[in-house]
Amino acid sequence: MLAVTPEEMKFLTEQEVKEGVRLACFFKADHDLEVAFIEPSEGMVILSHFKPVPFHLNPLIRFENVEVSKPILSDVRGDMEGIWKALGGKYQIGLDVLTRLPIVLRKGNWAIDVSIWDNKEIIRIESESHPLEGYGLAIDLGTTTVVIYLYDLTDGKQVGYLSFVNPQITMGEDVMTRISYSLENPEGLYTLHETLKLGLNSSIHKLCKNCQIDPLKVDELTIVGNTIMHHLLLGIPVAYVGKAPFPPVLQHEFDLHASDLGLDVNPMANVHMLPLIGGFVGSDHVGAILAADIFESTENHLLIDIGTNGEITLGNRDTFLCCSVAAGPAFEGGHLKHGMRAVEGAIDSFEMDDSSTRIKITTVGNVPPIGICGSGYLDILSEMLRLNYLSPNGRINPKIKAPRIRKGLSGLEFVVVWSGEKETHQDIVITSDDIQELQMAKGAISCGIKILMEKRKVDEVGEILLAGAFGNYLRPEAAKAVGLIPKGAEVVPIGNAAGYGAILALLSREKRLKAQEIAKKIKYIELASEPLFQDKFMEAIPFPNQE
Amino acid sequence: MLAVTPEEMKFLTEQEVKEGVRLACFFKADHDLEVAFIEPSEGMVILSHFKPVPFHLNPLIRFENVEVSKPILSDVRGDMEGIWKALGGKYQIGLDVLTRLPIVLRKGNWAIDVSIWDNKEIIRIESESHPLEGYGLAIDLGTTTVVIYLYDLTDGKQVGYLSFVNPQITMGEDVMTRISYSLENPEGLYTLHETLKLGLNSSIHKLCKNCQIDPLKVDELTIVGNTIMHHLLLGIPVAYVGKAPFPPVLQHEFDLHASDLGLDVNPMANVHMLPLIGGFVGSDHVGAILAADIFESTENHLLIDIGTNGEITLGNRDTFLCCSVAAGPAFEGGHLKHGMRAVEGAIDSFEMDDSSTRIKITTVGNVPPIGICGSGYLDILSEMLRLNYLSPNGRINPKIKAPRIRKGLSGLEFVVVWSGEKETHQDIVITSDDIQELQMAKGAISCGIKILMEKRKVDEVGEILLAGAFGNYLRPEAAKAVGLIPKGAEVVPIGNAAGYGAILALLSREKRLKAQEIAKKIKYIELASEPLFQDKFMEAIPFPNQE
Repeated sequence: MLAVTPEEMKFLTEQEVKEGVRLACFFKADHDLEVAFIEPSEGMVILSHFKPVPFHLNPLIRFENVEVSKPILSDVRGDMEGIWKALGGKYQIGLDVLTRLPIVLRKGNWAIDVSIWDNKEIIRIESESHPLEGYGLAIDLGTTTVVIYLYDLTDGKQVGYLSFVNPQITMGEDVMTRISYSLENPEGLYTLHETLKLGLNSSIHKLCKNCQIDPLKVDELTIVGNTIMHHLLLGIPVAYVGKAPFPPVLQHEFDLHASDLGLDVNPMANVHMLPLIGGFVGSDHVGAILAADIFESTENHLLIDIGTNGEITLGNRDTFLCCSVAAGPAFEGGHLKHGMRAVEGAIDSFEMDDSSTRIKITTVGNVPPIGICGSGYLDILSEMLRLNYLSPNGRINPKIKAPRIRKGLSGLEFVVVWSGEKETHQDIVITSDDIQELQMAKGAISCGIKILMEKRKVDEVGEILLAGAFGNYLRPEAAKAVGLIPKGAEVVPIGNAAGYGAILALLSREKRLKAQEIAKKIKYIELASEPLFQDKFMEAIPFPNQE
Repeated sequence: MLAVTPEEMKFLTEQEVKEGVRLACFFKADHDLEVAFIEPSEGMVILSHFKPVPFHLNPLIRFENVEVSKPILSDVRGDMEGIWKALGGKYQIGLDVLTRLPIVLRKGNWAIDVSIWDNKEIIRIESESHPLEGYGLAIDLGTTTVVIYLYDLTDGKQVGYLSFVNPQITMGEDVMTRISYSLENPEGLYTLHETLKLGLNSSIHKLCKNCQIDPLKVDELTIVGNTIMHHLLLGIPVAYVGKAPFPPVLQHEFDLHASDLGLDVNPMANVHMLPLIGGFVGSDHVGAILAADIFESTENHLLIDIGTNGEITLGNRDTFLCCSVAAGPAFEGGHLKHGMRAVEGAIDSFEMDDSSTRIKITTVGNVPPIGICGSGYLDILSEMLRLNYLSPNGRINPKIKAPRIRKGLSGLEFVVVWSGEKETHQDIVITSDDIQELQMAKGAISCGIKILMEKRKVDEVGEILLAGAFGNYLRPEAAKAVGLIPKGAEVVPIGNAAGYGAILALLSREKRLKAQEIAKKIKYIELASEPLFQDKFMEAIPFPNQE
């Protein structure tokens, strides 16, 4: 094999070289090779926990032992009719069940186990085995990361979970670039659809293997995702969802058989796609509202799910309003000089003394810092505001003499970590441009919150629920200090609320119906069509005056 | 190309040789060839007509023009939701419709045509075109022959039809040998299923092409067939249907999407498999009863459908009884010295003068006779009985001196046509063994009729309805003379009643429901489990005494 080149060495650690890691862009395949991909999610923090809410275990899948009386010459009936008779009613059946039926029935000596979906359809039959077995998957289909939870549907217990980077990421980092990919490439839509499906299948296989579960015993899947992920999984063209007025192709909940989607579980398993609210507010947000358990509340709650697009919901059981804000990628580290996602080496919290000489940081994975992620930026901004390094308009105060403030290539910048400090090999900075980007992002979110509060005629909210990774790791005081969220309210991080919403819909019929009610009743506010939106957005950009 | 060998010449006509017909078993392929198969149905009489009954045109498919209001920024809704709103209700949809929806809707400038099945599911959408178009196929899936009727569902008119030999015939001539094939061959079931499906697809394609219809505009198919054909089309194992107590896997009607079966029409088209009565009485007989229009009658009717298996139904609207009789292949010419199917050259009617010197025959296709088919045999037997050549016990009367009676290799035989007579090149005979076979077949049928009449406590029936090809071509007087059917009753041939039943179920919701009622209410009598069945069968074998 060709030796590692000096160019490759720039990108690889010694450990990686030792383990045989090579870069495909540098490596010339000169003989037959076995290639294994490094899991791109390794070292990445994917939020998979959540804040549980009470619910009654009542999945749509029911398992039954059925004893069928053998047909005799004077009383012949069909195999299926025998099962219906034993069950006390007629159920739908698919070809997969029908073609296996005569063999399974006789193998089980006329006693079989059946999985029934929604009191309507027999979706699986097995020669009798004790105890009854059946599983469900709840899937949170993120633009960047996908989380799959595996549950035992007989007792509602989590069996395991697995997260992975959405393999579509090579076709675009965000939904807009994926829409473009679908339009600009021959079979772009098909490629996006197939890539996601293959990724799901391989991860489902892996998760089931890890948990020693037969994937063919997975009887139901509930799936949440933003509108584009929802459409791409189903193979629905997304061309028009990306253009004003951004209409989705389908908003309602949608049920189909796993075989129709090509998912490698029980082919007759039901795939339940939770309903969407609109082109920019997907079923992931419906899931988050469900998980936040605020839909019946008499008090006003504010639910914020910040990602590349932020979704905000405000209201109480009388009325709920929601909107989508184009926060941009700043809080995920995008477009920022040393910005990065919350992966290993990202500074995720920051404090400094009043002279900014000594700093206290934490990083993801507790390794030397290599960049800054969203929650880190919020801390840095709030500390800079506290020490008056930063004026409300977002400019680094030129009158302040502080060791970490220096002139950079494009104006003043603040050195978060010096090279050599905290074992890093380079200066890690936040530039004036970075601050502007972050201001725009926080402005978009706080403007959205303000408009909802105005529309809903609410002066203050008792509780702010933060969903998602950024919301989970940020320091509420920092978020309030920079004006991202209103002061005064109690902040409750609720973890991967979207994913938990999918879990609730998997385990509880009532919760699933509630999700449909949420999607139906919630009022979507299109910010762009609000009068004076632009003015309100401009007003929301400055940082608050510090006390 | 190698010349035609003398061996091949024995089997080919001059015309065939001229046309390039060769026999695969003799021909050695020594270079690349294009091969075309001769349609095996050519020259075969396949019954495709029927006796129409009144019904109200009311197919389960409904066509609608839909104008959808364009979404605007202040009122965004999903594409699907727009259609539901315009239709005034929510309908099921499949992935095929959903993935085409955004494109079709905009191509049609927000006006589209939809096909709705059963007031439940949108199964096709098209950019608006006038007039609305949509078709249906009614299929009679016979063991030997398949007939496909194409109907315009907007006006209920027949567009065309096509019949072909069931391509499974190379895997067994009757249902029992096909069951064996499915058991004895690796992937036997799959082969039978695929062969039938491919045959259907190629014929559907051909029929649609002949009629200049786009197969993707076929929105529904109704299918009748015996239990084995029904199961094999669906790919259901038939192993147990062939063993006592002969339980089918499913008796009820069954609806599925064409794509689930792999039929090349609108993938979301509904395939409606009519219900079965039992292992030996399939949906073809349900269709025949529906077509006979006897289910509401106050009078008792006898419906007989004679093929390899005969199905017999007797009753009036109070109670209907049915049974299946193992008539064997004699009436289709099987196991008889000069027996043949009703294909070109088969003697299908026969008369002779009292001295048996002069005969009057007709043949299928009006060509010189080469053998005898079912209706021909009935005529011959009745003429032999009339002239006392044959005694009731089925023996050729040795005391009769008649020119056509002679000693054959195994007892006496009757020469139907002499070599040279009627331009034939060989003596065509009916042997003593033939007569025994025919007696057994007619005994099976008349015994079935008698048992049903006894059970139903009916002494005579007003009308006998004869379904199928044999029933269509036989001479009622001959059938009565040999004792196949009771004397006195009026005989009405009703043509391809099974196929017509499928047509009725295609065009009328009421008729489809009626078919379900028929399958549910009719009482199946298993002859083999009747007390004294063997005795009754023996009694039914002799011919009646002639007046």
